Amino acid sequence: MTSFAAIAAAADRLSGHARETPLLSSPFLDEIAGRRVLIKAECLQHTGSFKFRGGWAALSALTDEQRHRGVLAYSSGNHAQGVAAAAAAHTTPAVILMPQDAPAIKIANTRALGAEVVLFDRAKDNRDAIGAELAEARGLTLIKPYDDVEVVAGQGTVGLEIARQAADLDVTEADVLVCCGGGGLTAGVALALEQTAPKMKVSPCEPERFDDVTRSLAAGKICRNEASAGSLCDAILTPAPGEITFPLLARLCGSGIVVSEEDAMRAMVLAFLRLKIVLEPGGAVSLAAALFHGDQLSGPAAIAIATGGNVDAALFAEALHRFG
Amino acid sequence: MTSFAAIAAAADRLSGHARETPLLSSPFLDEIAGRRVLIKAECLQHTGSFKFRGGWAALSALTDEQRHRGVLAYSSGNHAQGVAAAAAAHTTPAVILMPQDAPAIKIANTRALGAEVVLFDRAKDNRDAIGAELAEARGLTLIKPYDDVEVVAGQGTVGLEIARQAADLDVTEADVLVCCGGGGLTAGVALALEQTAPKMKVSPCEPERFDDVTRSLAAGKICRNEASAGSLCDAILTPAPGEITFPLLARLCGSGIVVSEEDAMRAMVLAFLRLKIVLEPGGAVSLAAALFHGDQLSGPAAIAIATGGNVDAALFAEALHRFG
Repeated sequence: MTSFAAIAAAADRLSGHARETPLLSSPFLDEIAGRRVLIKAECLQHTGSFKFRGGWAALSALTDEQRHRGVLAYSSGNHAQGVAAAAAAHTTPAVILMPQDAPAIKIANTRALGAEVVLFDRAKDNRDAIGAELAEARGLTLIKPYDDVEVVAGQGTVGLEIARQAADLDVTEADVLVCCGGGGLTAGVALALEQTAPKMKVSPCEPERFDDVTRSLAAGKICRNEASAGSLCDAILTPAPGEITFPLLARLCGSGIVVSEEDAMRAMVLAFLRLKIVLEPGGAVSLAAALFHGDQLSGPAAIAIATGGNVDAALFAEALHRFG
Repeated sequence: MTSFAAIAAAADRLSGHARETPLLSSPFLDEIAGRRVLIKAECLQHTGSFKFRGGWAALSALTDEQRHRGVLAYSSGNHAQGVAAAAAAHTTPAVILMPQDAPAIKIANTRALGAEVVLFDRAKDNRDAIGAELAEARGLTLIKPYDDVEVVAGQGTVGLEIARQAADLDVTEADVLVCCGGGGLTAGVALALEQTAPKMKVSPCEPERFDDVTRSLAAGKICRNEASAGSLCDAILTPAPGEITFPLLARLCGSGIVVSEEDAMRAMVLAFLRLKIVLEPGGAVSLAAALFHGDQLSGPAAIAIATGGNVDAALFAEALHRFG
């Protein structure tokens, strides 16, 4: 299980390699939300999402021999790019297992970052089984996208930065809204904030039909999604919360918040207009919760982690036409 | 004439009010440029452009009585928003004179920030004369967009940050590329870097047909543009370099670089894809110079100041369709 000490250690290893992303705001967004809103712009992280942190934390925790043999990751795209970039910087071979319906830009970028990409069918194949087989055959170390102690520690460094940056703006009490897939970022951030900003309450935010974490928290046990594909929020579609992440989420988080795809797109366009950052739909779910689900928040301020910006140009243009 | 000391003083007054914007990069952009490229993302500044710095520096340098009577600014939009936001924070009334063909979002935002907007015809009216008349009639202090000692000092704070942030990345020798209208930012940054990063060379970057600064530097005297409107790079269309800015530019800058509108649009789309920031065409001219005019650069690295992101959604969507 990841500890606060593991997050602090990951922050040391990430120092000088990951970016400290800014905490942005706009009076126009505050007005829509009816409260102060701060946006942690992890889309500005290396590779366009927070996943670089977890990738770096995991790579830097391996033994030299493990790094020499190489790593394997499976991902809809952002974890893939994060691991590929971190592996390249460590001169470690990386094999990435990606769903064939992942956005073209994510597949192309992962290849361009030097990784070998293996595609699978999200609806038919069992990615865990394929991954285990590949790892065994080539002696690769599997870096899971969320259910990995060091990955959770790396993502938790976002929480350390939020506590410090929000305090600089005199914000110590807030709802912290996190776009949530398997819960690695949410669990890491909640652990970090438990120690550094105890008046902040973390809530996982999910797209409709992929609300496994919200239902799991309500039920007190891990629940799975029925669907496995078919949302614009591709970055955060996971079958269920993880074995490592769920106990942390259950102990530390408030209820989940579920937003519609349309609200995620609307938040994406508002981030374009008001913050001048590029978000993908799955990276805008937390901002959508802050802007359009204020009735589910209790703090005087909301801090939304805008988790990623790897969106295809055509989809972004369509969102601008519909909501711009 | 603005001095280095005035920039340092402005930095003190801006501290805690302006954002320290990040210095971004992407291996994909380095590859296109054939050298290391760092992007100072001033589109992430309050009001979506660096102009907030100059506005704040000017407002905070006024006497209490001047602040009480109010200020007037004329601007294609970014200076307008910068002054409007800074004036609102100082509870100072602001009247903004804007060309009627400025992007709709800039006019709307300026009004929403609490300023009174007066529109004029860029092709027929003399904005300086209209501004002087308004200032006289209402006792307002005119805050010029670039030919103002305190405005230049405020913009120069971008240079102080660049010197510090680039040194953290081991970059001390570079071409610093600045999107240039009247030269306020370019002059301020050049002054700041003369002291703090003497191996950096500042080059103003302009859109085709509005290359007054480039021609003025080549001729050794102020030259004017023939056209006064009709470029997508609306943020940096000015009739000529200023009386305060030109002597600084002539003493401190290298030759200007002129880029096509199409290259500015292409750079805007690459910033979307690779940096996850939103730029307006006039704010992407410096990045276009870094990416597509490497033959005019001499340093081992290029630092492009991405000056603003206040672009209409429809124009951005069109650029994504054409170049995405």
